[in-house]
Amino acid sequence: MNEQRTVQDLSSEDFINNLSYDSVIFGFNGKQLKILVLEYHNTGLFALPGGFVKRNESLDDAVKRGVKERTGLDDIYLEQFHTFGSLTRSNPSAMKRILKENGHDLKHNEWMLDRFITVAYYALINYDEVSPKPDSLSDSIEWYAIDELPSLMMDHDLIVEKALQVLRDNLEKKLVGMNLLPSKFTMKQLQKVYEAILGEALRRTTFQRRILGMNILERHEKLFQGKAHKAPYLYSFKSNHINKSQEQEITT
Amino acid sequence: MNEQRTVQDLSSEDFINNLSYDSVIFGFNGKQLKILVLEYHNTGLFALPGGFVKRNESLDDAVKRGVKERTGLDDIYLEQFHTFGSLTRSNPSAMKRILKENGHDLKHNEWMLDRFITVAYYALINYDEVSPKPDSLSDSIEWYAIDELPSLMMDHDLIVEKALQVLRDNLEKKLVGMNLLPSKFTMKQLQKVYEAILGEALRRTTFQRRILGMNILERHEKLFQGKAHKAPYLYSFKSNHINKSQEQEITT
Repeated sequence: MNEQRTVQDLSSEDFINNLSYDSVIFGFNGKQLKILVLEYHNTGLFALPGGFVKRNESLDDAVKRGVKERTGLDDIYLEQFHTFGSLTRSNPSAMKRILKENGHDLKHNEWMLDRFITVAYYALINYDEVSPKPDSLSDSIEWYAIDELPSLMMDHDLIVEKALQVLRDNLEKKLVGMNLLPSKFTMKQLQKVYEAILGEALRRTTFQRRILGMNILERHEKLFQGKAHKAPYLYSFKSNHINKSQEQEITT
Repeated sequence: MNEQRTVQDLSSEDFINNLSYDSVIFGFNGKQLKILVLEYHNTGLFALPGGFVKRNESLDDAVKRGVKERTGLDDIYLEQFHTFGSLTRSNPSAMKRILKENGHDLKHNEWMLDRFITVAYYALINYDEVSPKPDSLSDSIEWYAIDELPSLMMDHDLIVEKALQVLRDNLEKKLVGMNLLPSKFTMKQLQKVYEAILGEALRRTTFQRRILGMNILERHEKLFQGKAHKAPYLYSFKSNHINKSQEQEITT
């Protein structure tokens, strides 16, 4: 019955219609903050890795499966941060080009040209430790520094901006949970992380006073490196805060 | 063609299928934290005020419209906090009972018995200043203290729990933006707010040290009330934090 298709089409019967997810995968190696971006075949269109939710899988499972399929990266801890639902965010003509250039039949994929509300997730990983691989839809998958991003399709620029805001607002919590710093670190190392992620230089004295005022650090022995009288203290993160902030869990 | 219906049915053509919203409206008067709960006609089922998104309206507009329709409350500032997408969260048999007891035709509303992913919003308002009104589906709409909540349908208990966690984790930010305290307040007034929302007694000295360490308060003149030597200082919230936390905006 079906005509032969060169690529596997995604059927509207198998997926929840009008709902997608997108992921902002921040890469950080202690020095520079980057984001993972896909470029679609023959379109010049750049986008965040995203996808759809099967009718018989949970939202979180869909995101885990999809991010693995699209980036080749497994076991990334993704955290949901916002759902984007404006009327103007979808872009049927861009979606048409992507489907066409990838050999998809438009008739079988009409549901993809409809309006989509998207649930956005973010992750913060060390880009030195992973090797992303593009999926079959894409020419390339690359790390881009946040101040050198190409223009992204649909509202993906806005999604990145919001992710960055959430990451910056939750920096203490994220850093406690991540392994981006050694378990004991100097004030200078911590300041470098803040500066890279906030995207600005901070005054040493102000930074130190504020971060100590937040009561999230425990002070340890000094780091001796020869010049003993200049040795800086080592710190680690305390595990409990005033609000008893838990590590955020993916809850569905 | 259509048989006569006693109530207006919601058509699957007009709404995005498989997607809903729910709202956790916290009420607080400086002393006690409560939540707004609806009870459905003749079912004994309690639920958060929620609803669906029209195909031609944005997610945020749907929530504003829906919360007004269901609670009678207008101009509430709602903030999105999480989207719940597990496979097990929907409850077709409870939904059937609600539709039946409210005189809805099951055939016309079959889409409502399908799986739903729900986007959850919360608000924090002063319950002394508002008078909620139940919609036509519901017997009552009432404020319940958070430690005296009835059991809620579907995963609404989990949604409340998550909302409470987000509120507690973001208490400083929420309090700065809300008018739940006078613009200048004493340390004791602030401690009472924390105790009510965190649901536990705090030690005065520990609380004071931690809150001052957060560097979010500005100290003003003393509040003189007769016994001058015991007069407490007045404080107000500073507007800028280390992370340059913005007031959260609804962004779609």
